[in-house]
Amino acid sequence: MKIGIDIMGGDFAPEATVLGAIQACQILQDKATIVLIGDENGIHPILKREGFDVSRFEIVHTTEVINMSEHPAKTFSAKPDSSIVVGYNLLKTGAIDAFTSAGNTGAMLVGAMYVVKSIAGVIRPCITATVPQLSGEKSLILDVGINPDCKPDVLVQYAILGSIYIENVFGIKNPRVGLLNNGEEPEKGNLLTKATHEMLLHESKINFIGNVEGKDLYNGTADVIVCDGFTGNVILKQAESFYTIAKARNISDEYIDLFNFENYGGTPVLGINGNVSIGHGISNAHAIKNMILQAKEVVDVRLSDKIKEAFK
Amino acid sequence: MKIGIDIMGGDFAPEATVLGAIQACQILQDKATIVLIGDENGIHPILKREGFDVSRFEIVHTTEVINMSEHPAKTFSAKPDSSIVVGYNLLKTGAIDAFTSAGNTGAMLVGAMYVVKSIAGVIRPCITATVPQLSGEKSLILDVGINPDCKPDVLVQYAILGSIYIENVFGIKNPRVGLLNNGEEPEKGNLLTKATHEMLLHESKINFIGNVEGKDLYNGTADVIVCDGFTGNVILKQAESFYTIAKARNISDEYIDLFNFENYGGTPVLGINGNVSIGHGISNAHAIKNMILQAKEVVDVRLSDKIKEAFK
Repeated sequence: MKIGIDIMGGDFAPEATVLGAIQACQILQDKATIVLIGDENGIHPILKREGFDVSRFEIVHTTEVINMSEHPAKTFSAKPDSSIVVGYNLLKTGAIDAFTSAGNTGAMLVGAMYVVKSIAGVIRPCITATVPQLSGEKSLILDVGINPDCKPDVLVQYAILGSIYIENVFGIKNPRVGLLNNGEEPEKGNLLTKATHEMLLHESKINFIGNVEGKDLYNGTADVIVCDGFTGNVILKQAESFYTIAKARNISDEYIDLFNFENYGGTPVLGINGNVSIGHGISNAHAIKNMILQAKEVVDVRLSDKIKEAFK
Repeated sequence: MKIGIDIMGGDFAPEATVLGAIQACQILQDKATIVLIGDENGIHPILKREGFDVSRFEIVHTTEVINMSEHPAKTFSAKPDSSIVVGYNLLKTGAIDAFTSAGNTGAMLVGAMYVVKSIAGVIRPCITATVPQLSGEKSLILDVGINPDCKPDVLVQYAILGSIYIENVFGIKNPRVGLLNNGEEPEKGNLLTKATHEMLLHESKINFIGNVEGKDLYNGTADVIVCDGFTGNVILKQAESFYTIAKARNISDEYIDLFNFENYGGTPVLGINGNVSIGHGISNAHAIKNMILQAKEVVDVRLSDKIKEAFK
């Protein structure tokens, strides 16, 4: 198995990305080869400084960089030798089994949509986040940012995508799917949730348990929480601020630590022909390491193939 | 000044509502008269048991009750002697200066829209919540539940309503208005926020500072945070769960205590011809007390009149 990491991606690249790759390599050992995609002139000095054997990695040298502020679609065609474009090409040809990056999210999504493309039958891919339960279990929320304006049929597909993900990666059988909403009753919420609720009731591929409110995200109510990407992104960012608040108040708690995004590193893009993870722009080495490890889990369970089968 | 409290409203009525009224009365003394609207046969025994002088209140006896599960619009006309309908009539005639209730929210909103009605020029009223800042200041978020599907011009009006509220009730001059969104850039978010951002830039009545992300709700970035009612409600409920989580983890912190909704009791409805506050159905006496006190503040500053002037 080969996992690609965009060495140029993120605010703290290449330092954070190379160090994160080293940490991941130390954990993975022979279970996977990590492929460093980026400017080798930035990579080698760090490896040398850390005394890490360069031969434990594969390195794919790139000469261009897509910056955080560049317009995604234009830059994808304008910079064919950027780490993001090269990474996607490696993924498409099967040279790597997963591609991970904390770089320009827009460019990463352009690659997802136009290089590896949606799985046939998937209307819109999505990205997910882990929702740590007080019980110690993990739930999933999606979409958290790719698709700010969703239609009901898209949310129903998110329910299916999330269920397949959580069943295969977290090992939760027959996961309970909840629709994020303003109240319990089916007629609650906005036009989108009212229509979606109705459709979810009739979707046999999932175990729909009804609406889930903002107050029930952490108390074991649902395994998969479905929402549009705008709401999901706001919710996710607010949840991350819970950790920030605790730190500001000098509170140290194992459970609240789980709200630190660095634990998760990246979010897998679900519904595309290939395993892609997108990380926070501010990812440090720890977050990068976790993104790579998570990508390996996704490859291990053949997630894209499982999704392809479900959408045939 | 007279403040009406719906004695029959909420899961713990009349116990919580009468006790809350007693607590508020002890604080307000002669500054306002609290009018207990509900079944006197439920009111008197509690006052007697508490040894509280019944003459310190006004009591308006009602014989019907709108239950939490009843259909709001139908019940409003079907139960003219319910505490909610009577309360609204008292408000409309000026017999009371504010009406507060933890009862059937739908019915409370029917009363707001059809009895006291929107202020001329206000497209849709809204409800707000306090957002406690780490600095000790207070910000405001709106809408948090009346209007799940908003149009851009409605959000712009929320910016104005929220600014007037926070300027008059919290004393914050030239409040900074932020648009809740998925990122800093103007083009971020969904169709609603993209269009709203553009309109806010040109709204001279407010001090628009740009987009605010879910991670910046508590760090002093904005005084007024504008969003649609669906998103606002989910955000509010997740914020309340921070308090629940802290309690579950045996964490006691003064700042996190501020996420306990009971501190605020109720949320004022902005943009209608009269002062109305709606409380959580699960309000206890402490929450009811705070709802009444907050209603007094709103009457003190003549909030509805100020809003009327702004929308002429």
